[in-house]
Amino acid sequence: MTTGAQLRVGLAGLGTVGVGVCKLLAKNAQALEKRCGKKLVITAVSARNRYKERGVDLSGVTWYKDPLALATAEEVDVVVEVMGGSGDPAKALVEAALRAKKPVVTANKALLAEHGRALAQLEEETKTALCAEAAVAGGIPILKTLREGLAANTIFELHGILNGTCNYILTEMLETGRDFAEVLQEAQTLGYAEADPSFDIDGVDAAHKLTLLSAMAFGVEVSMRDTFVEGIRKINAVDIAYATELGYRIKLLGIAKRHEDGRIEQRVHPCMVPKHAPIAKVDGVFNGVVIQGDFVDKIVMEGRGAGAGPTASAVVADLVDIARANTSPLFGQPASLLGPLRSLPLGQRSGTFYVRLMVVDRPGVIAEVSAILRDEQVSLEALLQRGRAPGEAVPVVFTTHDTNEAAMQRALQSISRLNSVIEPPQMLRIESF
Amino acid sequence: MTTGAQLRVGLAGLGTVGVGVCKLLAKNAQALEKRCGKKLVITAVSARNRYKERGVDLSGVTWYKDPLALATAEEVDVVVEVMGGSGDPAKALVEAALRAKKPVVTANKALLAEHGRALAQLEEETKTALCAEAAVAGGIPILKTLREGLAANTIFELHGILNGTCNYILTEMLETGRDFAEVLQEAQTLGYAEADPSFDIDGVDAAHKLTLLSAMAFGVEVSMRDTFVEGIRKINAVDIAYATELGYRIKLLGIAKRHEDGRIEQRVHPCMVPKHAPIAKVDGVFNGVVIQGDFVDKIVMEGRGAGAGPTASAVVADLVDIARANTSPLFGQPASLLGPLRSLPLGQRSGTFYVRLMVVDRPGVIAEVSAILRDEQVSLEALLQRGRAPGEAVPVVFTTHDTNEAAMQRALQSISRLNSVIEPPQMLRIESF
Repeated sequence: MTTGAQLRVGLAGLGTVGVGVCKLLAKNAQALEKRCGKKLVITAVSARNRYKERGVDLSGVTWYKDPLALATAEEVDVVVEVMGGSGDPAKALVEAALRAKKPVVTANKALLAEHGRALAQLEEETKTALCAEAAVAGGIPILKTLREGLAANTIFELHGILNGTCNYILTEMLETGRDFAEVLQEAQTLGYAEADPSFDIDGVDAAHKLTLLSAMAFGVEVSMRDTFVEGIRKINAVDIAYATELGYRIKLLGIAKRHEDGRIEQRVHPCMVPKHAPIAKVDGVFNGVVIQGDFVDKIVMEGRGAGAGPTASAVVADLVDIARANTSPLFGQPASLLGPLRSLPLGQRSGTFYVRLMVVDRPGVIAEVSAILRDEQVSLEALLQRGRAPGEAVPVVFTTHDTNEAAMQRALQSISRLNSVIEPPQMLRIESF
Repeated sequence: MTTGAQLRVGLAGLGTVGVGVCKLLAKNAQALEKRCGKKLVITAVSARNRYKERGVDLSGVTWYKDPLALATAEEVDVVVEVMGGSGDPAKALVEAALRAKKPVVTANKALLAEHGRALAQLEEETKTALCAEAAVAGGIPILKTLREGLAANTIFELHGILNGTCNYILTEMLETGRDFAEVLQEAQTLGYAEADPSFDIDGVDAAHKLTLLSAMAFGVEVSMRDTFVEGIRKINAVDIAYATELGYRIKLLGIAKRHEDGRIEQRVHPCMVPKHAPIAKVDGVFNGVVIQGDFVDKIVMEGRGAGAGPTASAVVADLVDIARANTSPLFGQPASLLGPLRSLPLGQRSGTFYVRLMVVDRPGVIAEVSAILRDEQVSLEALLQRGRAPGEAVPVVFTTHDTNEAAMQRALQSISRLNSVIEPPQMLRIESF
């Protein structure tokens, strides 16, 4: 160990995560020096409000009003970007730092999902590391696992719970039997959901993370355009109860699969998963990821996907890698070798489905529905109709055998036009891992 | 990517794992070249029997009868040791390769558990990487996770299912209600247990792995001497049934904890764990590890802990790291900085316990037992005695509140001397993660 050697950190952003990084570097300074052979020292910071009390000692640290100035400051060896946002100033900061040959650590999934390929190219051109462990699944070292730990494998599938807010809401709905709106409000009160929750509950955040994982797993470009995204607003207590009855849990999953012809499926939506599947047991604010490779078979990782501590853990792990000169390319291979993403449209996939209809309880309804399904060659696995209430609305639930998704969608459109069907059908994909 | 660049691999050992490495390097050659910027090519092999049919093409590869000659061969850049055994030739091979400045990848936990510190010192002296991902938990990249992914954390506890043979046996015993000997025999027939199974079922293999994890987690020397080891021979169907009744599963765990005074507990033994704990759900031949750190909180990893594919995945991941010049020290910090292991003797720890006695069913037995427990200040949590059979042998089961282990052991000795107690008491530690 070279005594006195330092890695000087410029920290852009002093929100929850930035403050977490400060606390971690202070608390574990001695161990980090042993592990890196260098002291990790914050020498510069940038944030909107200079004088806010944050509970960390920033005396002796240079203050930059303009984060871009921090990116090129002389006393900074490496830049940590924890400001967030897919555009400037975060984007300009990362670019400026790489151009100034200062490695960058970022927690910014939106930035990477939108501009990942261009930034990876800049990483390659400047031969300067861009690290982003904190961008996906918080404290779980999932990027390192994909790019390094499982680097020997051809990955063919991964799926994960990538958004703790949605998983918390779905877990609470299951445990309390309450409806979506009520649980969302409680999550907001507890700080598990934002005041404007749409980014989380509409699946966008999970989709950002999924596209990054998919690019790393399959060596293709990051593409939000090729990702089907649907959130959890439509999930209600009735479907959760049916899922339980049928032996499933409802989870918002990100799923990426490579088919034998090289085409890739990327989708984020609520699914039913068998209650004994590893991913079904990941509850509350936890994240979990399952990766399948040709030699390793199946690897499951679970941990906290957000919060100051876990995110700081991931940010500082990247700093340790940089201090050890131990980094691998952002997407696990040179950006120039990332292939185009040939996408498998949703309509061309097959799968099994859960459908719940609200129908008027009168003779002939099931015959009408069955005829439509038969015409689209949708084969039923099970059909539940319970509780007679002649003339009133009752739920009819069915699950299917393996079915082409386009055929299923056509059948649902026909079904929704029936007079006896009084609500748009509820459809959930069943995933049997 | 430098076209034509190669990393030339010398492979010592052509058993299941060695052949798995050959197959992996052949099947995923193209992807590996993209990821490493180099071709990974086997140029030399060594094994006992040259002409055995192994289903892999070794034409053009130099054959060494003497593995030591392979270690220093000119056409070898990196040596893979998958021969096994804690002594020579494996040890001599690894030493010779490092001295010749050829990085080494080994899957040999016995070697590292016995000689880890000396080998880490040699790694440091020669500035040549010694990598061992395959030595612990097969395909799960647990060493990388501890040393790199969680490098920002002070780790205070880890526990894991580190031996697939034992976990398979315990899972089968639970699912079928059969006894140990019968399930062991079946496991041997299926190839999940060796003809001489003692290394696995007596906990030695798990202890080797635990000491390596503990050294990496806590920055201390590898010490089998300071590891308490007990296997699963004593587990029987009766205790598994009681565990289920009490809400537990019985698992062979490796547990390492650092206490606030810096002392470290290392132990491998069967335990009862709450059935909802993550580790309780790791079944069959799978391995699982749970790590707790100060910032990341809890990380769980699960996957296949043995077998040709998963082990080859780990071996080749190390080769990728070496090709990328991306290695970290074996124990995550320079060997010279590894502290001594100050051990917490088992008798000084406290915990909760499950005890089963076989007693003659006659008045006064419980009073005698209770008096002994009271005298040792062991406080009961629950006591079960069921089914009267006056004059015959019946089980009495109790669980305790938090108790000093030495006191518990003294109490058990006194209890075993009672006339009415007709078998040595069965004691299992309860771990509440």
